[in-house]
Amino acid sequence: MNAHQPRAAEHAFVLFDVLRAHERLAELPALAEHADTGLLTQVIEEAGKFVGEVIAPLNREGDEVGAQWWDGAVTMPPGFRDAYQAFWQAGWPSLASAPEDGGQGLPTVVEAVLHEMLNAANHGWTMAPGLLHGAYECLRHHASDDLKARYLEKLASGEWLATMCLTEPHAGSDLGLVRTRATPLPDGRFALSGTKIFISGGEHDLSDNIVHLVLARLPDAPPGPRGLSLFLVPKFHEDGSRSAVHCERIEEKMGLHGSPTCVMRFDEAQASIVGEPGKGLNAMFVMMNAARLLVGLQGVGLLDAAWQKANAYAQERRQMRAPGTASKAGEADLIVLHPAMQRILNTQRAWIDAGRVIAYRTALELDVQKHHPDATQREAAARWCSLVTPVLKSAWTEQAFAGGSACLQVFGGHGYVREWGIEQHVRDARVAMIYEGTNEIQAIDLLVRKTLTDGAAGLLALLADLATDLGTQPEAQGTRDALARFGDFIRNRVVPLAGTTPDRPFWLADDFLRATALLLMAWAWERLAATAGHGADARAAFWRWVWPEFEMRLTMMDASLTG
Amino acid sequence: MNAHQPRAAEHAFVLFDVLRAHERLAELPALAEHADTGLLTQVIEEAGKFVGEVIAPLNREGDEVGAQWWDGAVTMPPGFRDAYQAFWQAGWPSLASAPEDGGQGLPTVVEAVLHEMLNAANHGWTMAPGLLHGAYECLRHHASDDLKARYLEKLASGEWLATMCLTEPHAGSDLGLVRTRATPLPDGRFALSGTKIFISGGEHDLSDNIVHLVLARLPDAPPGPRGLSLFLVPKFHEDGSRSAVHCERIEEKMGLHGSPTCVMRFDEAQASIVGEPGKGLNAMFVMMNAARLLVGLQGVGLLDAAWQKANAYAQERRQMRAPGTASKAGEADLIVLHPAMQRILNTQRAWIDAGRVIAYRTALELDVQKHHPDATQREAAARWCSLVTPVLKSAWTEQAFAGGSACLQVFGGHGYVREWGIEQHVRDARVAMIYEGTNEIQAIDLLVRKTLTDGAAGLLALLADLATDLGTQPEAQGTRDALARFGDFIRNRVVPLAGTTPDRPFWLADDFLRATALLLMAWAWERLAATAGHGADARAAFWRWVWPEFEMRLTMMDASLTG
Repeated sequence: MNAHQPRAAEHAFVLFDVLRAHERLAELPALAEHADTGLLTQVIEEAGKFVGEVIAPLNREGDEVGAQWWDGAVTMPPGFRDAYQAFWQAGWPSLASAPEDGGQGLPTVVEAVLHEMLNAANHGWTMAPGLLHGAYECLRHHASDDLKARYLEKLASGEWLATMCLTEPHAGSDLGLVRTRATPLPDGRFALSGTKIFISGGEHDLSDNIVHLVLARLPDAPPGPRGLSLFLVPKFHEDGSRSAVHCERIEEKMGLHGSPTCVMRFDEAQASIVGEPGKGLNAMFVMMNAARLLVGLQGVGLLDAAWQKANAYAQERRQMRAPGTASKAGEADLIVLHPAMQRILNTQRAWIDAGRVIAYRTALELDVQKHHPDATQREAAARWCSLVTPVLKSAWTEQAFAGGSACLQVFGGHGYVREWGIEQHVRDARVAMIYEGTNEIQAIDLLVRKTLTDGAAGLLALLADLATDLGTQPEAQGTRDALARFGDFIRNRVVPLAGTTPDRPFWLADDFLRATALLLMAWAWERLAATAGHGADARAAFWRWVWPEFEMRLTMMDASLTG
Repeated sequence: MNAHQPRAAEHAFVLFDVLRAHERLAELPALAEHADTGLLTQVIEEAGKFVGEVIAPLNREGDEVGAQWWDGAVTMPPGFRDAYQAFWQAGWPSLASAPEDGGQGLPTVVEAVLHEMLNAANHGWTMAPGLLHGAYECLRHHASDDLKARYLEKLASGEWLATMCLTEPHAGSDLGLVRTRATPLPDGRFALSGTKIFISGGEHDLSDNIVHLVLARLPDAPPGPRGLSLFLVPKFHEDGSRSAVHCERIEEKMGLHGSPTCVMRFDEAQASIVGEPGKGLNAMFVMMNAARLLVGLQGVGLLDAAWQKANAYAQERRQMRAPGTASKAGEADLIVLHPAMQRILNTQRAWIDAGRVIAYRTALELDVQKHHPDATQREAAARWCSLVTPVLKSAWTEQAFAGGSACLQVFGGHGYVREWGIEQHVRDARVAMIYEGTNEIQAIDLLVRKTLTDGAAGLLALLADLATDLGTQPEAQGTRDALARFGDFIRNRVVPLAGTTPDRPFWLADDFLRATALLLMAWAWERLAATAGHGADARAAFWRWVWPEFEMRLTMMDASLTG
């Protein structure tokens, strides 16, 4: 099995040729100096080199050996610590951090490209730095000056790693049920007690310290989510003493063995509050939204990695006669010549390429939302991020699993054995449909929380933007029609749901998200097609085998609306 | 985690209430004495008890410990040998074997029920006896009297187990490429040399002997599949000496760790020919067809096992407020009350129930095909088995994986950890999409080999039979219309494919199989609905969330036909 090799040129193609990211970034004063395709391409190429040489080769052993727990300590798989030390010392975690915190101030989208590559190469390893930038942003926006002085640079540089401690045994999707308690101490700090589960990287030997961000309740807090505050608990205090936070065990999982999923017990651990009391979820949301985009990128990256493996195998292995070829009895054709295998490969390629366009566009809009001088542009960007992030997270993590499984199928029986590494992708990818908000919760987020609450004004504006973006080329008429049709459906059928029985919208949320995902893909494929010479096979696969689901989802929604 | 518990009453319900199996069996003189619902129900209940008490509890450790290879020998997981010894000594392998071979002469469908239960409870363990009955039938129909005298009873009783040695490193789906050689010896036997891979149960300690059925080439054989002959090589000869057949290693796999997948090397092993030279594939097909039905039953059983787990969890675990319930802040509702979770559970239930109807009907038709006094009935039954088996194998193994993954989703993060056992179902189920002919090969089998070769006469007759079977009840009009519509589509669009470029049919084979599967499901749901009080939720789920794919597949086929 060969380790995954990033293809920097393909990422740069989407960024500059398809999305014209440099032109967009040039509009943002804070980032305009980096709106240089030469510079950004160089960063992406270097990232590809680092990922391919240092991170990718550790993936297999990360799965085979896994993170090991012993008496509260976690030993990471061979090579993981050295790779992490090389990673932060080379400055990779600080790409998009602010220069005043020691960061490089590059656009968010460059970090997005890096993380897509990292996840494709080694999902398990990448979990550890995956939450780092979110934790940095969370502290940057919500922590006191004192806390910032003590932690911000270490998180910006990645010298220390961070966790997000939300889930408890009885409180998974529903954070309002969190019971961990924080009791004020006389010195202004807090004593924090409780048990958190499913904490990725809660304990490990990659970095010399770990900064835990923990949701907990103050003694006088009201029940439910508004009673939650956010606290910081380091593994080691500044004086070198160890906090009262213990890793009780790590989970045995289906995959992702390179990432320790920890049960963390806090025993009156000394904690500092981050932001205001009762505003914990608010402070956490910065981190969670960033994490959702990264999980969507995981989906794109993992599917791409599976595709690369399957495609290489199909170009090399021969099996059976393919129809319409001239081979003789006793000879066999390359697997890639068989229609069923071509269909799998081209269909997954369609998902990867469109997903990349949508994900990079989202990362760009994050910067536009922050930095654009024009308020209307900032508003449109905020709308894009808010509405597209759950769609990307849900649809592309599902595809990483289902499409990864299709790529496994290309190997026949060899796909089921570990030797080729393809089954690891499928096992690893499965978790992304669950964490950072299950895919079903993303669907509720899109329809119930973000579409019905403003009479669909935001989503309709997004659809209108997509249509405008496609211009008037006749080839895109089908996509413009579909956008208009979905708009009508939303106005006439979905918006009236806001006044119906409360459970009705929940029955069509999943279909609604899928239909939105397919429309975004259709837009992305128009953009890709308008860029000379790109993937005719994948484009045809999209229209022939992916797009027909749109009609099916409308049918299903119709049944849920009338049923 | 609780071990799976078969629900005998649900199996008996499909068999007698829905399919009226006893009436059908009463038409077959060879089996009429067993057409007794009391007797058959008792066998099914006993089977459920045995499976629940003896086989199911071994499933988890079978996965955790797995089969272990050492120096050519394979040690099975704890309890596996004892369970197997109890299994054959209780007579379970011989349920459907002929009385003259020491069997019990029960209908094939009873064995089907047993195997569905076994696979649901412990897929890994069940692989070992999975091929036994096929091997028995193969010898019964093709072996010489001398070979039969030496092996048939041992296989009928299950005292010895059997393998099917087809695949070689370069010859998986394409058996025509097999290179294993058999050289005649002066005494009428053969010396067999070559390496076979992916041999399930090639070596183990469950039974005292193992009978290998091996495809190989005689020295003067032509290239391709017509040059293949079938040979028998026992692990131990009658004199107790060991054959020159070695297990070189077992594969590390994604799942199914309880079943050793062996690389078997034959070094001039003494072999006996089974059937005529050059007719090896023909003899093997008996075994392969039986195996395909069993794999379809694995799909149904594995999905049912995953559903049972998910349903139990959803009835017990509380998380978030469900819409439309009266719970207060700080309280949570049962997972089963959330629409997205109900949708998953009801949809998978729809697949399980319909799959069971189709699978049991197929098992019944196998006996009708063999034993019915009326040639027309035998012919119709042969048509059913030939056309429905690939559909069942492909669509239900895919559903065991995709629907098993949906059941995993019901557990949220807990589904991804091993503790609850649901992730094992997903890992185990994945292989069934590959072995016994990949799902893509099943689709080619259905469309190219079985539909286009007779101008679709067989398939059109099957559709007509389904429509007739539904009678004239007004509720079934939609299904009758769909059957008629697919018939027209086949006549007008598919049949003309036979004269087109050779690769064209291959592009729509997968969609064609899916459309056929959905029509069979629609028929099964009409049958289920006509039986008082059965599963209204699952029925509604079928029409709302499963059936719309039918239209989508027609759209996709249309694009492949015109594209």
